[in-house]
Amino acid sequence: MEERQTKPINYLDHAATSWPKPPEVMQAMQTAMVEAAANPGRGSHKMAVKASRVMFESRRTLSRLLRVHNPNDVVFTHNTTEALNLAIKGILRKGDYVVATMVEHNSVRRPLEYLKRTLGIHVDYVPVDHQGNLDWNKLKDALSRKPKLVVCSHSSNLLGSILPIAEMGELAHKHGAVFLVDAAQSAGCIDIDVHAMNVDLLAFPGHKGLLGPQGTGGLYISPSIDLEPLLHGGTGSQSEEVEQPSVRPDRYEAGTPNTIGIAGLRAGVEKVMEMSTLHIYQHEWDLTQQMIEGIRRINGLQILGPHQGAPRTGIVSFMSDRIDSSEIAFRLDREYGIAVRAGMHCTPLAHQTADTLQTGAVRASVGVSTTVEEADAFIDAVSQICGKA
Amino acid sequence: MEERQTKPINYLDHAATSWPKPPEVMQAMQTAMVEAAANPGRGSHKMAVKASRVMFESRRTLSRLLRVHNPNDVVFTHNTTEALNLAIKGILRKGDYVVATMVEHNSVRRPLEYLKRTLGIHVDYVPVDHQGNLDWNKLKDALSRKPKLVVCSHSSNLLGSILPIAEMGELAHKHGAVFLVDAAQSAGCIDIDVHAMNVDLLAFPGHKGLLGPQGTGGLYISPSIDLEPLLHGGTGSQSEEVEQPSVRPDRYEAGTPNTIGIAGLRAGVEKVMEMSTLHIYQHEWDLTQQMIEGIRRINGLQILGPHQGAPRTGIVSFMSDRIDSSEIAFRLDREYGIAVRAGMHCTPLAHQTADTLQTGAVRASVGVSTTVEEADAFIDAVSQICGKA
Repeated sequence: MEERQTKPINYLDHAATSWPKPPEVMQAMQTAMVEAAANPGRGSHKMAVKASRVMFESRRTLSRLLRVHNPNDVVFTHNTTEALNLAIKGILRKGDYVVATMVEHNSVRRPLEYLKRTLGIHVDYVPVDHQGNLDWNKLKDALSRKPKLVVCSHSSNLLGSILPIAEMGELAHKHGAVFLVDAAQSAGCIDIDVHAMNVDLLAFPGHKGLLGPQGTGGLYISPSIDLEPLLHGGTGSQSEEVEQPSVRPDRYEAGTPNTIGIAGLRAGVEKVMEMSTLHIYQHEWDLTQQMIEGIRRINGLQILGPHQGAPRTGIVSFMSDRIDSSEIAFRLDREYGIAVRAGMHCTPLAHQTADTLQTGAVRASVGVSTTVEEADAFIDAVSQICGKA
Repeated sequence: MEERQTKPINYLDHAATSWPKPPEVMQAMQTAMVEAAANPGRGSHKMAVKASRVMFESRRTLSRLLRVHNPNDVVFTHNTTEALNLAIKGILRKGDYVVATMVEHNSVRRPLEYLKRTLGIHVDYVPVDHQGNLDWNKLKDALSRKPKLVVCSHSSNLLGSILPIAEMGELAHKHGAVFLVDAAQSAGCIDIDVHAMNVDLLAFPGHKGLLGPQGTGGLYISPSIDLEPLLHGGTGSQSEEVEQPSVRPDRYEAGTPNTIGIAGLRAGVEKVMEMSTLHIYQHEWDLTQQMIEGIRRINGLQILGPHQGAPRTGIVSFMSDRIDSSEIAFRLDREYGIAVRAGMHCTPLAHQTADTLQTGAVRASVGVSTTVEEADAFIDAVSQICGKA
């Protein structure tokens, strides 16, 4: 979309971590390290106050992006996984019933399976079809059994399909359930309005679509929900109490935060808002359609997820009927300097749905900095490795 | 100790976060962001491999510092608080008995009190005297009641006193207990050898004495101990399993790590090893003695912790019989550009010991970059605020 750092490689692994970052991100981190790298909320000296301001400004910027009314309802975490663990373990109690989907990432599935084993919770994973469409009747069946929590990935990290979270949230609320959305693949490329979309809890990464550094992420927590904190410890507030303070965001942010990373995250989110998520979505969608059009002309390749022309995030996964996925990824890297990912992508459930549990898949994922030329180079390389165009 | 970045303020809050960082830290972070900011362990392309190498090299550097045999026994966390939560919640089960001390930080106390409430564990906090010396008889009494876990802060973040962890660890092991050390104030300024010191679990911050950025920390986990992970989620390994993988460090590092911060941490630790912890300890001790000598000449001030001449880390806390601690800190900042901290310092137990629970204390803490002139300027300013020299 615009000139960034020199790109020595054709990086198509944005669904794992976006790269390169806008130069403003590193600049913001440098400034924070020089001027504001004291402990926010733990002292009243000028630099500690500056650190607190960095945290608050970033919270406010994210609130604008996600249409959160009160910035203190956005809490920062190490990554999406911590945000999802906080949400899931913070709300579920012994014997609770949970509804999730077959496109959930292991960062949702593993906490749920852990609570199954330790707290005896019950979980149903609602099926999706090969294009990633949810079985709406099965969802309604499950909801009629009164789940406490409905969890849904906003976009599958394997298929790129987009789930209708606003409608799911409305239905979840009708049945009295709390609605948790995993925005790992959507934050920054799909417009999110937590209120309009009926989202009670939204976990997001800082280092993917929001263009911030690794080591950042967060959770939006509706003011109507009180979670048991995942971490207990120092907050710089109500230090004489043995209990974690009830005030937000302190309640959910024990320990020294990643002030520098969070300064970088703010710069990334500002860049996203400057470009607009709609523009980013369109840019990435155009590229995926270009890639799908190219790949479907190659014999023996099967593209996963939504049909050509249908909505999807910047993910194109495929497999060959002749060549192992990991070999394709390896050759793309070594022979063509193209970075993609092969394997399970931490989502065995979605692979089960796509019938690719045994084979895995090659996943190419684009970002704001990916160009038409890079997508073309990718198609040419796949064509040379996998067969005739 | 050497020329670093320009210091616009006299920063005496190193016990919260060290500042400024060696320039190598930001350089390492920049390099990592440009060259290695993909997802470690989640792909086989060159940049993902580079990211994995960043993680491993940092693990190896820390292992050298802490004399850990296998680098994979060092796992990275967001901060010390997460490391302590992982250790405490990962090992304790219903009804267990724990021995801690009266100098523990809230990041130890609050998880313990949480487990008291939820799992019915039992906790005894062994008293210390005003100088921070542990009541050895009380410790032995407690150990005779067969605790599962003994937790100890290596150095009090209020008093600066140093606890005899090697001896405590030996005694804990004799009674069959696991020994957990909170090295928040000691890592980087006291030489640590986990084996020689009988430490089974060691939680450390990246952003204090190790001179790395915020958002980094870690836990050493003895190979003989298996903890229940605090976070369940994707690891890029054994993705088809519903259980967290058993292999280290993956078992304890679900989610995308702070690769960039960890690259910076490695640069910080290398700087520490280049200077040597002994040299750093001596430098900081000299400064604390200079400050104690200056402050004890000022009427109406009471210095907390070990007597002059006794071992201590870079912390000097004091209170005035006339002026509120927070007012002293406020005036030091506004009128003299000196950054210290006033209040509870997240350790109400230690304040209880020091009889300062009602008043709080002013804490000045020095670091590798603090100079004799800065310590003098601090004494002069305190003298002008608090009374005649």
